[in-house]
Amino acid sequence: MSGLTIGVDLGGTNTRAGLVTSSGQVVGRSRRPTRLDRGAEGVIEGIAACVREATANGGASLSDVLGVGVGSPGPLDPFAGVILTPENLPCLHGVHLKDRLAGLLNLPVAVDNDANLAAFGEQWLGAGLGVDHFLCVTLGTGVGGGWVCEGRLMHGFNGNAAEVGHIALNVDGPPCPCGNRGCLEQYASATAMVRRTCEKIASERPNTALKAEGLTTQVIFKAAEAGDAFAAQMFEETGFLLGVGLVSLVNVLNVEVIALAGGLAQAGARIFDPAQRTFFERGTSGVKEHVRIIPAVLGDDAGILGAARHIRTFL
Amino acid sequence: MSGLTIGVDLGGTNTRAGLVTSSGQVVGRSRRPTRLDRGAEGVIEGIAACVREATANGGASLSDVLGVGVGSPGPLDPFAGVILTPENLPCLHGVHLKDRLAGLLNLPVAVDNDANLAAFGEQWLGAGLGVDHFLCVTLGTGVGGGWVCEGRLMHGFNGNAAEVGHIALNVDGPPCPCGNRGCLEQYASATAMVRRTCEKIASERPNTALKAEGLTTQVIFKAAEAGDAFAAQMFEETGFLLGVGLVSLVNVLNVEVIALAGGLAQAGARIFDPAQRTFFERGTSGVKEHVRIIPAVLGDDAGILGAARHIRTFL
Repeated sequence: MSGLTIGVDLGGTNTRAGLVTSSGQVVGRSRRPTRLDRGAEGVIEGIAACVREATANGGASLSDVLGVGVGSPGPLDPFAGVILTPENLPCLHGVHLKDRLAGLLNLPVAVDNDANLAAFGEQWLGAGLGVDHFLCVTLGTGVGGGWVCEGRLMHGFNGNAAEVGHIALNVDGPPCPCGNRGCLEQYASATAMVRRTCEKIASERPNTALKAEGLTTQVIFKAAEAGDAFAAQMFEETGFLLGVGLVSLVNVLNVEVIALAGGLAQAGARIFDPAQRTFFERGTSGVKEHVRIIPAVLGDDAGILGAARHIRTFL
Repeated sequence: MSGLTIGVDLGGTNTRAGLVTSSGQVVGRSRRPTRLDRGAEGVIEGIAACVREATANGGASLSDVLGVGVGSPGPLDPFAGVILTPENLPCLHGVHLKDRLAGLLNLPVAVDNDANLAAFGEQWLGAGLGVDHFLCVTLGTGVGGGWVCEGRLMHGFNGNAAEVGHIALNVDGPPCPCGNRGCLEQYASATAMVRRTCEKIASERPNTALKAEGLTTQVIFKAAEAGDAFAAQMFEETGFLLGVGLVSLVNVLNVEVIALAGGLAQAGARIFDPAQRTFFERGTSGVKEHVRIIPAVLGDDAGILGAARHIRTFL
């Protein structure tokens, strides 16, 4: 067996690896808890163990593997393969993950932002299949993004392109940890939707069954589905704000397809309808008619496939 | 003499052409009024006449010229070379400028957005010299932009990338002709600065010598220089809003240098200081420290040089 690469999705909770063929078939898998308690060495050894396990599970040996792509939460330096300061990987701050993992495995390694690699995976085999100008926006705890232009994953001058959660929608909006105010992430992440819902419950005392305690977007979704007008309105508002953000992004990047991934995208029409409607109301003529806003389709595999594809671009 | 190309800057008032060497020296020039009154044929013949004149003025003949690049106001289709619906070139709407000019001159022709080609010129020989990830923002009647990534002029899927004036800074801001609200262009164009100043004069009755009648950014600038605190404050506000917009743009494009061109950029420190200060206050750590916001330097030649360079990429 030849022509195989490994894609790794390194998270703060789990590390997952997949042995991937040149056509994108995952033929071996592995998953382990990310042992943050064992420090950088423990985490890196865990990645190496996952790589070996996925390889063996695919009936191959490491000598059949051309290289390893690793998706990690950022910020990181994808050119040097150095992890910078991701909140949920404290023990890896400043660690030269690329060199250390390459040394352990004796294989070429590339490290990139997890949102970038998820986008690269979706563009290979998912929502962006056959689309040269593609953006994938992940609506989770934050709002992340990955952007493919002319079929290539884009990085900018120092690897921080497509930080799409950090375009300002309101110059005087809520402060964002990034340093700006009113960022898209402050409106269209799951976290932000919950925060805004709690604020409205406290300040406007709406007629709703929702309570601030233990609120999640799933709870808001279920209430909306059960006929709670306030809950439905929160999705309308969030979708509207997302739609305005997508207009700005398309006016700059001129992508043809935007895929939405992450927890909030699971709300389906409740989030897609107002986002698409707003996009069409506020988008630029001559562009908006050609743009599709669609769900990402690969789920957890997007990152693994994107990572496995990414390392190929270095071989 | 060989290796020469022609760059044309087609405007609603004047058509200008330059005969340009492979190293970017303009060795022949020509300028004519754009005869909109003579319709598409008249305008295209005017461009051809300009091309011939610049060639002759450079001591060359058309057989020495490899091709012609034309920068035009948009919207246009740069791939097909078709002018779409630019406001100040009504007689060219729907005209296949590339094919018709190529037919007249018997030379390869490429047509692109004037802001794109100005950026491409600045990146070749001006503010972006040696910078692979570069954005040029023109602050004039509107806010236009051109973007160079890894040394290549970027277009997106249908030629509408880098419409940087149309990122929303306030979702409920003033309506923009593009269809959105609160676009950067509604705050940081010369037109918008004048409009906002007039609105404040009417609504806030500030202590100022400025009058709404005949107001221009130059008048506001002179008043600010003469010590008018309200006029100075208008530049502060405009620079602040521009700075917030530049933060969003860098968070998406991850460019290393932004050059500011156009009339408002002539205000120097009055506009650069608040824009740079805001950028550094609100930008993302790890990025903002490396980004430079500087004046464009090539003036009217940027478009001609960019157009002359652009046609080379097709040869």
